[in-house]
Amino acid sequence: MKFAGFQLIATALHLALVGLAVAQTESAIDPLPSWNEGPAKAAILAFVARVTSEGSADFVPREERIATFDNDGTLWVEQPIYTQVVFAFDRVKTLAPKHPEWKTTQPFKAVLEGDREALKTEGKHAVEKIMAETHAGMTSEDFAKLADDWITTAKHPRFKRLYTECVYQPQLELLSYLRSSGFKTFIVSGGGIEFMRPWTNRVYGIAPPDVVGSSVVTEFQMQDGKPVLMRLPKLNFVDDKAGKPVGIGQHIGQRPILAFGNSTGDREMLQYTCGGDGARLGLLVLHDDAEREYAYGPADGLPASKVGTFPQTLMDEAKQDGWIVVGMKDDWKQIFPWSR
Amino acid sequence: MKFAGFQLIATALHLALVGLAVAQTESAIDPLPSWNEGPAKAAILAFVARVTSEGSADFVPREERIATFDNDGTLWVEQPIYTQVVFAFDRVKTLAPKHPEWKTTQPFKAVLEGDREALKTEGKHAVEKIMAETHAGMTSEDFAKLADDWITTAKHPRFKRLYTECVYQPQLELLSYLRSSGFKTFIVSGGGIEFMRPWTNRVYGIAPPDVVGSSVVTEFQMQDGKPVLMRLPKLNFVDDKAGKPVGIGQHIGQRPILAFGNSTGDREMLQYTCGGDGARLGLLVLHDDAEREYAYGPADGLPASKVGTFPQTLMDEAKQDGWIVVGMKDDWKQIFPWSR
Repeated sequence: MKFAGFQLIATALHLALVGLAVAQTESAIDPLPSWNEGPAKAAILAFVARVTSEGSADFVPREERIATFDNDGTLWVEQPIYTQVVFAFDRVKTLAPKHPEWKTTQPFKAVLEGDREALKTEGKHAVEKIMAETHAGMTSEDFAKLADDWITTAKHPRFKRLYTECVYQPQLELLSYLRSSGFKTFIVSGGGIEFMRPWTNRVYGIAPPDVVGSSVVTEFQMQDGKPVLMRLPKLNFVDDKAGKPVGIGQHIGQRPILAFGNSTGDREMLQYTCGGDGARLGLLVLHDDAEREYAYGPADGLPASKVGTFPQTLMDEAKQDGWIVVGMKDDWKQIFPWSR
Repeated sequence: MKFAGFQLIATALHLALVGLAVAQTESAIDPLPSWNEGPAKAAILAFVARVTSEGSADFVPREERIATFDNDGTLWVEQPIYTQVVFAFDRVKTLAPKHPEWKTTQPFKAVLEGDREALKTEGKHAVEKIMAETHAGMTSEDFAKLADDWITTAKHPRFKRLYTECVYQPQLELLSYLRSSGFKTFIVSGGGIEFMRPWTNRVYGIAPPDVVGSSVVTEFQMQDGKPVLMRLPKLNFVDDKAGKPVGIGQHIGQRPILAFGNSTGDREMLQYTCGGDGARLGLLVLHDDAEREYAYGPADGLPASKVGTFPQTLMDEAKQDGWIVVGMKDDWKQIFPWSR
């Protein structure tokens, strides 16, 4: 009986291999169909081939194939304003009836009146006050529900689509391609870690533990006899610029071999990634497509932007260090899952 | 041709399923052979069955099957002294020739002379001084190498085996069993995150990103033109007691459904885990086997211990909240991979 079982398995496996080989030849497809043929796509395919070919001098074992992606401007739209800031402003509007004093108190007055100039005058201090009122004083689980409820209804002002539909199709393909090539993919974003985690698995296939981001201090408390994590109005960690490699060290504990960003906030992450031994790939999205998405820099004479700044110094460093600059206009055949 | 391919696959898959069914019946084996039959083993098997049976009221989707394990005293031996403290003391001895002043300066003098009484007198302050000298002022990668070199040579004073051999065989089986049941397994330890990460994948099958622990502040720096993370002599996070749920929130971002600990340091982790909705399992190792390992409590009249304290209040809470107390003596057939 045992022998019969093994024989059946052997026969079945043989037939399965033959069948799969036939199917595979028939369906050999481009893993990055929304990327135009060009140096960026070629560099990605060549890099993945190098690090995954056993026997290659650049072979990297599966457990060391770590890829980190910025979120705002790298995986989804960040113009005209960061999505999480829109969320915070919407929270102010929702909470306003309970805070009649906000009608006459800055920065809340400016948010309620849509007065961007007044908000700019208030500056950094305004952001802190708004975050304290809208992002703290509740449990992590309650905040996750608020964020998730909002993200499944709020729409981008220009594209009239959910923000989670304003993700870049070429990047969704790249994430899938890397994972099917044995990579582990992480988000490393300046955005709030608990703002992203409720929906990243659904949208990007990236589970909560694989999201690295900025955070507030949380405290273990008993609330009506139920143990919870309470979000306090105090910044814990800023996962931006030199904070990105630190966040990677804390959460991942391994130096990535591939990092993808789009602004000055990603510079140190790319330096850290590409500064390791062996094959490394650093990539930056350049938003140079005003027609299909947005155009901002100020590198290459593109309009300046406070959101997702890509200065000429970053372009120069990319050229010097061999980081791949991915131009939306030329390198991406399609921008969003629903658009060309 | 396409049709032929699919037909082959269909035939092959059918045969494979028949073959596998035969093989599975023949080889149905106990997933926890080093656990004695008894209430603890039964509770684990019943819990896994409940949360993995589709259609069951307690079914939990794979992506929410999070299990967290303490390390010291839960996965490996913590007596007579925490392994990482032995590492720190050994570092003091290794570095001593470069620090002749240590011969006359506390707490280093006490470490060099093996004077435990003097160390106790120095107290908490001593630990901080020793950690600053032995655990900081180097890059994360250099520290990982030091830790890994040490752990592959240092031996436990009583068992005369590598510390990584003084891991509990029943727990290795449980980790494997949980993973094969779709769980994601994490370490959540008071020990140093960068002390554990170099070897946890090798020893427990738990990769660096899935290790949560205490940490020092790290800083992104350029060292001779090479980007590194420098470990500073400043505590960043203590992953113990109420810090454990906070560490879980930061690193995992999901409330576990199973948590396993062995001391007061794990109390809040079990509270947080078992305080969620749906099926939950909290477990505690009770070290009651002086012959094969160690016996300490002081619960149940066991000798008191400063390392891995298990007081009667914790035993009472376990009984009240339905946490499973796993007695080494009765519940574990075998303790270490190499012993009975």
